[in-house]
Amino acid sequence: MTTAAKLRQRSLLGVKDLSAEEIESILDRAQYWESRGKKIHNAVPDAIVANMFFENSTRTRFSFEMAAKRLGAQVLNFSAAVSSVNKGESIYDTVRTLESIGIDAGIIRLKPIGVLSEIASRVNVPLINAGDGNNEHPTQALLDLYTMRKHFGSLKGLRVAIIGDILHSRVARSNLWALRKCGADVVFCAPPNLEAPELDAPYVTVDEALGADVIMMLRVQLERHESGMIKSAEDYREHYGLTVERAARIKGHAIIMHPAPVNRGVEIDDELVEHPQSRIFQQMANGVPIRMAVIERALRG
Amino acid sequence: MTTAAKLRQRSLLGVKDLSAEEIESILDRAQYWESRGKKIHNAVPDAIVANMFFENSTRTRFSFEMAAKRLGAQVLNFSAAVSSVNKGESIYDTVRTLESIGIDAGIIRLKPIGVLSEIASRVNVPLINAGDGNNEHPTQALLDLYTMRKHFGSLKGLRVAIIGDILHSRVARSNLWALRKCGADVVFCAPPNLEAPELDAPYVTVDEALGADVIMMLRVQLERHESGMIKSAEDYREHYGLTVERAARIKGHAIIMHPAPVNRGVEIDDELVEHPQSRIFQQMANGVPIRMAVIERALRG
Amino acid sequence: MTTAAKLRQRSLLGVKDLSAEEIESILDRAQYWESRGKKIHNAVPDAIVANMFFENSTRTRFSFEMAAKRLGAQVLNFSAAVSSVNKGESIYDTVRTLESIGIDAGIIRLKPIGVLSEIASRVNVPLINAGDGNNEHPTQALLDLYTMRKHFGSLKGLRVAIIGDILHSRVARSNLWALRKCGADVVFCAPPNLEAPELDAPYVTVDEALGADVIMMLRVQLERHESGMIKSAEDYREHYGLTVERAARIKGHAIIMHPAPVNRGVEIDDELVEHPQSRIFQQMANGVPIRMAVIERALRG
Repeated sequence: MTTAAKLRQRSLLGVKDLSAEEIESILDRAQYWESRGKKIHNAVPDAIVANMFFENSTRTRFSFEMAAKRLGAQVLNFSAAVSSVNKGESIYDTVRTLESIGIDAGIIRLKPIGVLSEIASRVNVPLINAGDGNNEHPTQALLDLYTMRKHFGSLKGLRVAIIGDILHSRVARSNLWALRKCGADVVFCAPPNLEAPELDAPYVTVDEALGADVIMMLRVQLERHESGMIKSAEDYREHYGLTVERAARIKGHAIIMHPAPVNRGVEIDDELVEHPQSRIFQQMANGVPIRMAVIERALRG
Repeated sequence: MTTAAKLRQRSLLGVKDLSAEEIESILDRAQYWESRGKKIHNAVPDAIVANMFFENSTRTRFSFEMAAKRLGAQVLNFSAAVSSVNKGESIYDTVRTLESIGIDAGIIRLKPIGVLSEIASRVNVPLINAGDGNNEHPTQALLDLYTMRKHFGSLKGLRVAIIGDILHSRVARSNLWALRKCGADVVFCAPPNLEAPELDAPYVTVDEALGADVIMMLRVQLERHESGMIKSAEDYREHYGLTVERAARIKGHAIIMHPAPVNRGVEIDDELVEHPQSRIFQQMANGVPIRMAVIERALRG
Repeated sequence: MTTAAKLRQRSLLGVKDLSAEEIESILDRAQYWESRGKKIHNAVPDAIVANMFFENSTRTRFSFEMAAKRLGAQVLNFSAAVSSVNKGESIYDTVRTLESIGIDAGIIRLKPIGVLSEIASRVNVPLINAGDGNNEHPTQALLDLYTMRKHFGSLKGLRVAIIGDILHSRVARSNLWALRKCGADVVFCAPPNLEAPELDAPYVTVDEALGADVIMMLRVQLERHESGMIKSAEDYREHYGLTVERAARIKGHAIIMHPAPVNRGVEIDDELVEHPQSRIFQQMANGVPIRMAVIERALRG
């Protein structure tokens, strides 16, 4: 195997690159790490990884940092807002800089579409996608699958309804592709102008979506849609929000998910965030062992 | 004891919750840590704590980070300015997120009044108050008491004058309550419109205040009082500032304190900041062992 | 030797303070650290250093952080943008604060000229200059010399041409002084209004500069020169930029250097950044062992 091929295998640019077996193996490894408890392991001595966030984030950045630290790695935190990206430095140059100073793996979130794969092909350090424009958010999908598998035992035959702004959602895309590989059925539910025509998945009504095993709500990017793509928060809630009334109609064994952060009272009612059927904070908890598995894979191959 | 009660005992939301014995025990433990020297101890293996600052800070955040690192803990640094709190995420959701990803204790500073105790009752991780609106700043009071005890041997019977904007000061409140519990006398000195009527402490003139054993100056929040609550920096200095002239009249054994950062030439003259009777930088130094004691208490119970 | 003298010897405020022997000894120690590989050494147990950046930076801050971590030290990261320097706190007070809380060494970058040496004389902790206004940037010069020595074997007799905004460049100053001490010849090339009259070095034309052994390009501070000091990026490139055409005329054994971040297509053409004769990313890589040597020197004396 060439060096480039080996590097590609240690990187995680998207779930599209993973086979069902690879996905299950990451979930298994996450389960192992979860079972080991809240320790600082000495699993990757000498490793220094960089969080490179060219887009704001709280939970994802900390989840990766926590995962790296639990593995025993050190972390450099780069955040665009406090750096010379202000001076017009390109994302590529920043990644190359961090590669040059010797990071062992880079965790990267960025907005511009199509840039990540090009960067990955030009650097010699494994990269982990922590959110890539509207394209993929693979660790989010992996932690979502982990959460579902934990509750249902298996992903095969599960019916997952993803409700919200499909058009702009990297979470929807990564979940669609990962879930399909693992044998689950995915349906979408979205306002007509927020459907993603290039994705080959059936659209259903909200009422139909409520019959699924997993009800996954997406965050409405209120700030992004001042362009008029949504009328108002109230209107969105009325037509697409998971209200208390709608939640009363989901199946008894169904679970409610959301990648967070939530807009309480918009796409999901306040009372439902910590509802017994909600897994929203468990998703965050599950993100840590998933990211331990992914970082370990990047560092050890 | 219930889990909630145990958690409450490990948290430090305010000095109001502490008995005199608990205060002295924290001071004693700080003394122990100070005597151990500038080492990185392995006192809390596997611990990861989070600094969660929803309000700007330099010295307090670094003091806590230093304390955690000296104990051997790892630190996640959250600062509102570079996070998705920008996206309207609530403080509660951020704390719950960090709890979910597995922090062992949270150090929190925030502005909105009354939020902290509600959050503490809803999460399952010990919290340490690093500045709570106008309410309390317990570790500042503890380090202040530590500084006084170090100089005077005991707090009993000490006369402490706190001069400045009492109305908006969490430092004044925490010191008042902690000092009283330990047998010290507290008097306030403030411009009439910056007195805090709900606090049961006598107000004295600046001249009377200068006769105390401890002269504690408070920072004037110049930026907060563009509303006209203070006339000008010059006027404030003239009437309430610790000038070189006034400092010449304090007792020989008295000490000058200030929670910092200081406005040099406003509430205290430049020449006094490092005056032999000033303890301002020693207060900062003392903050580290105090916070080691408080973090250790949160982690070990 | 007095404490102050010892402290001065462990600090690194500028290459001006170093003898040729001291420079070579730092380069040798960097070589030692580079030869030890990408490990986390336990060279400075218990050490906690602070990055204190009062001016934006990516590569330099991370380079120092990486160097400290490779040595086994812990790092506190202070960046002015997210701190109470906003509240008008002076740089001195911040440094004193970090000294008070017990840092073992401080790495400092700041804009105001003449402040650093005054601060260093007033604190009792070794300081490392990470960029001091237009004055010095000693670790940049040291890594540049390291890069040259690595390629040419020795610095003696080397001809180094530094091209660009000499007037505002701390990189040019530190390189000039360090290279001269080590026996190299330095020539400058700059637009007439960006020459530094107080520096005693010959100015040459671009064509003459291309005949040097080392072609060191400086970053054009486009944002700084809205005052009209440069006409336009295009004009600058035409007259002073290292274009592909000009690069074709440099000697076969010559190397191209740049302190980064580069303005691709302004002072250097895009295609040249990773040209076989370019050492730009190697400079960054070399920064880590250099800074390990400098931090180690500060901590151990």
